[in-house]
Amino acid sequence: MTTQTLIRDRYPSRLRDTAEMLERTEPVVWGSASDGPLSQEQLDAFDRDGMLQLPGVFSNDEVEAMAAELRRMSAEPAVRSQDACIIEPASEQVRSIFDVPAFSDHIRDVIADERVAGAARQILDSEVYLHQTRINYKPGFGGAGFDWHSDFETWHTEDGMPGMRCLSASILLTDNHSQNGPLMLMPGSQRTFITCVGETPDDNYRSSLRKQETGIPDRTMLELLHKRHGIHTAEGLAGTLLLFDCNTIHGSNGNITPDPRSNVFAVFNSVENTLADPFAAASPRPEFIASRDFTPLR
Amino acid sequence: MTTQTLIRDRYPSRLRDTAEMLERTEPVVWGSASDGPLSQEQLDAFDRDGMLQLPGVFSNDEVEAMAAELRRMSAEPAVRSQDACIIEPASEQVRSIFDVPAFSDHIRDVIADERVAGAARQILDSEVYLHQTRINYKPGFGGAGFDWHSDFETWHTEDGMPGMRCLSASILLTDNHSQNGPLMLMPGSQRTFITCVGETPDDNYRSSLRKQETGIPDRTMLELLHKRHGIHTAEGLAGTLLLFDCNTIHGSNGNITPDPRSNVFAVFNSVENTLADPFAAASPRPEFIASRDFTPLR
Repeated sequence: MTTQTLIRDRYPSRLRDTAEMLERTEPVVWGSASDGPLSQEQLDAFDRDGMLQLPGVFSNDEVEAMAAELRRMSAEPAVRSQDACIIEPASEQVRSIFDVPAFSDHIRDVIADERVAGAARQILDSEVYLHQTRINYKPGFGGAGFDWHSDFETWHTEDGMPGMRCLSASILLTDNHSQNGPLMLMPGSQRTFITCVGETPDDNYRSSLRKQETGIPDRTMLELLHKRHGIHTAEGLAGTLLLFDCNTIHGSNGNITPDPRSNVFAVFNSVENTLADPFAAASPRPEFIASRDFTPLR
Repeated sequence: MTTQTLIRDRYPSRLRDTAEMLERTEPVVWGSASDGPLSQEQLDAFDRDGMLQLPGVFSNDEVEAMAAELRRMSAEPAVRSQDACIIEPASEQVRSIFDVPAFSDHIRDVIADERVAGAARQILDSEVYLHQTRINYKPGFGGAGFDWHSDFETWHTEDGMPGMRCLSASILLTDNHSQNGPLMLMPGSQRTFITCVGETPDDNYRSSLRKQETGIPDRTMLELLHKRHGIHTAEGLAGTLLLFDCNTIHGSNGNITPDPRSNVFAVFNSVENTLADPFAAASPRPEFIASRDFTPLR
């Protein structure tokens, strides 16, 4: 008997022939203002929008130190040879490094900082562990965009994450403005779960990191959410911290400008929400994408 | 003896192994405030920026009438069967109709209106004819972007346009905002011609309407122009008229939002600048893309 059979699937996706819009069954904000660095006003904003943008959380020196870590890792053969290191074949440039704490104590400490992990613990009102971490470098001159999606839909179906007690943090290492393909989010969309149609192919993660083919929300439903919630463009200077709920619909256009974009990305999951077997995939994704080490972050 | 050999090539492109930045040899604005609808201030802005954005030139009723014409033409078998009508195979939706006056007296009259053709005659200080016309419908949910380019580079090399006495007019039929992949331009770039590397393949236009593979400016030079001039995003409500010089570097990101974009596009060339043989292509492009009917527009 697998763990899966013990857990009721509250968000059935990739299992039926028609898409549905389901109401979220759990809170967006679990904690309160006394529990951490965020004010009640900020918690209320996160509750309403499923996102919170905090400018100037990291100083220029801190940003430069993280960028230097990215450059150091990108040049290191011991990092480049790992599966967790995604290299663009044509340019041989590093695009993403997953499981960052394995390669950088410095970035690990930034993620564990009270300003980031503390905010996550506060919102989720529990200890947290790192479901996924990543440092990204997206070049200018034609960097690709990413279609609208809910991260939770993938983490649920492919990784076995039972519920929505999970959020992402993105630390901007470069300025994001409206022209260089910034993240766009539908504020408020975190309260609706769009079930997706189509079975998960084996080893889906290999292609889905580039372009998602399964777990794509229905267009009519996206239009409805768009009408209801609009789109927020996450413009912000380097050093901005962006927190967003695991189910907030987001995506990005491409980037033809010469300005690259770079960020540190960490997914904090509640230790009350650890992974079961995948809800709609034959086998779980690799550990560097979906960790099964549930040790609380300290 | 071809006409080409009689005309000195002031802007040699696709002919050499290395890219160069050449200074423009002719004016951007040829006329003066007494010659047409634009004020001296507007002419000065066009001269400086190589572009001029005029909000509210067309009323909502006029915009709706043009949109209705697009719908009418898109449904008409006699239009859909033409080479000038570009249909997306998967959806069977019309994306662009070239040579619009051949199919719509209404749109022809809009283009010939003093607000549009009058402004073109004023800037170019001569009679003008239509080098190319187009009405576009770009759907949301993943409409493709277009890399940085100078239109003149293509019109010169592939169509035989001798000099830069030519401009484009775009009438917005839908709202363009920063999120739905609006046109981006480098204001001031019209004074620099980047020669491109690479020979023109035969029948290049068939693929280049989708994605340009030749006539691509050098990235280091684009970065330099970007540093020098920055990028202007042509945000504007439906009814806005955007005029831009034939050599102003422009492009656009993709569009993942549900909002489609639609516009009427007309290229006005001076009758003093009519086409010769292509300067760097084996044969000229079809008439619906590059007209050789130089009759002054009235």
